[in-house]
Amino acid sequence: MHPLDAALVLQPEGDGSVTGHTSPAYANMIGPFGGITAATLVQAMRGHPARLGEPLALTVNYAGPVADGPFSVQAEPLRTNRSTQHWRAELRQDGQVAVSATAVFGVRRETWASTEIGFPAVPAAGAVPALPPLGRVAWTRQYEMRFVSGGFPDFSQGRADADATTTLWMRDEPPRPLDFASLTALCDVFFPRIYLRRRQWTPAGTVSMTIYFHADAPMLAAHGTQPVLGVARAQRFGKGFFDQSAEVWAHDGALLASTHQIVYYKE
Amino acid sequence: MHPLDAALVLQPEGDGSVTGHTSPAYANMIGPFGGITAATLVQAMRGHPARLGEPLALTVNYAGPVADGPFSVQAEPLRTNRSTQHWRAELRQDGQVAVSATAVFGVRRETWASTEIGFPAVPAAGAVPALPPLGRVAWTRQYEMRFVSGGFPDFSQGRADADATTTLWMRDEPPRPLDFASLTALCDVFFPRIYLRRRQWTPAGTVSMTIYFHADAPMLAAHGTQPVLGVARAQRFGKGFFDQSAEVWAHDGALLASTHQIVYYKE
Repeated sequence: MHPLDAALVLQPEGDGSVTGHTSPAYANMIGPFGGITAATLVQAMRGHPARLGEPLALTVNYAGPVADGPFSVQAEPLRTNRSTQHWRAELRQDGQVAVSATAVFGVRRETWASTEIGFPAVPAAGAVPALPPLGRVAWTRQYEMRFVSGGFPDFSQGRADADATTTLWMRDEPPRPLDFASLTALCDVFFPRIYLRRRQWTPAGTVSMTIYFHADAPMLAAHGTQPVLGVARAQRFGKGFFDQSAEVWAHDGALLASTHQIVYYKE
Repeated sequence: MHPLDAALVLQPEGDGSVTGHTSPAYANMIGPFGGITAATLVQAMRGHPARLGEPLALTVNYAGPVADGPFSVQAEPLRTNRSTQHWRAELRQDGQVAVSATAVFGVRRETWASTEIGFPAVPAAGAVPALPPLGRVAWTRQYEMRFVSGGFPDFSQGRADADATTTLWMRDEPPRPLDFASLTALCDVFFPRIYLRRRQWTPAGTVSMTIYFHADAPMLAAHGTQPVLGVARAQRFGKGFFDQSAEVWAHDGALLASTHQIVYYKE
């Protein structure tokens, strides 16, 4: 079983909730990688017997630390319309909310379509060297990361970089066919923009992440195990929080998702 | 009383919920303007006795139509940390969820700060003519809108526009000092990007909106009744949904909020 699928195993309980366990493979410096937590919430909604369609929008709020160990997820459809469905979900440990989420699911249909933003001019993934795993942080070993620009900064250089933008090819390691759970986690692979902007280690953590899914299930299935291109930038740092906006593109230049975060930092 | 304040009057009930009533002044074609609904949810959280700090992030999901008439809002702090607080809220009519929301509130502190995106080169608000109100849609009469570019399209022209970007100076009409509620509503003033992109009327409605607040209360108080500059663009239209990203800037070039939406459209 792929480590991502192993991390996303959820056991239905009698009361409508599901239980799971954090995965050492996706451990961050403290607690799990936020992307795997977001994917867990998507998985809980996707596995719910009342689910309609596929994810269109997801917001995950990291309310408190997630401890290594068991957790429960309660996902509830708040309202089901003809073609859309609104969800709330909470991940709890010891009865306390650690993560809250809302999502919109829906059934998509063919319409006029247009992408208003451009796929960046980048070399093919195979032409970009893969980053060696960052030794101490387990989850980074679960991703192949090929930085086109804005790679993980060398803090020993000690100079501020004017540009907090990262462009990278990325995929699950080992490769795994793309689906909504893995795309969700990939949206959180970007390291905190403040590392790049200031070139100094700074305590930082995502407070809230939103994803808009542009891909539907057939598009993800067609993508398979190819790498995706991620582009992330910061907008405003101030008074302890900054926001990040990012896109995740298919290898063929189709936009799979746009995603936004607000991130805590401590100067 | 300013029409915005009148629209946001909420009556505490014994059970922790509050009740309100839609305002004819902020009526949209069907039901209320989405911005006033979002502001109502912020107001319910801000008025809660357990509230800590000010809004940092807000996500509002428009789950179903809001009918003209009374509604109840249940806002609940899910978790309170030392300097942040996580909320959920739901607006109900006849017992059914019409709108769901999550928010992060927090206490901000001085840190290193930087804005990574630029305030656009625009003429001062006073040099841009104000749009006459759109007769049939009540809420547009509650805003002064001075379009620098990307104004409301003339559908009779019948040609597609390549650019779905709007830049406008906007403020409450009559002018009202800026606060979190009015800033929240201003984040939804942008008309659907598909109107501009295709130059044809298309049924469209916001499904989910997220706001990241960069302003704190003193910054909003200092802004007063000056107009704010809004810039909105579309990213991807496809299979019935598009996403919009926007910024709201203070008159002096400080970033007040960044905001994102996913919007339903029917071709």
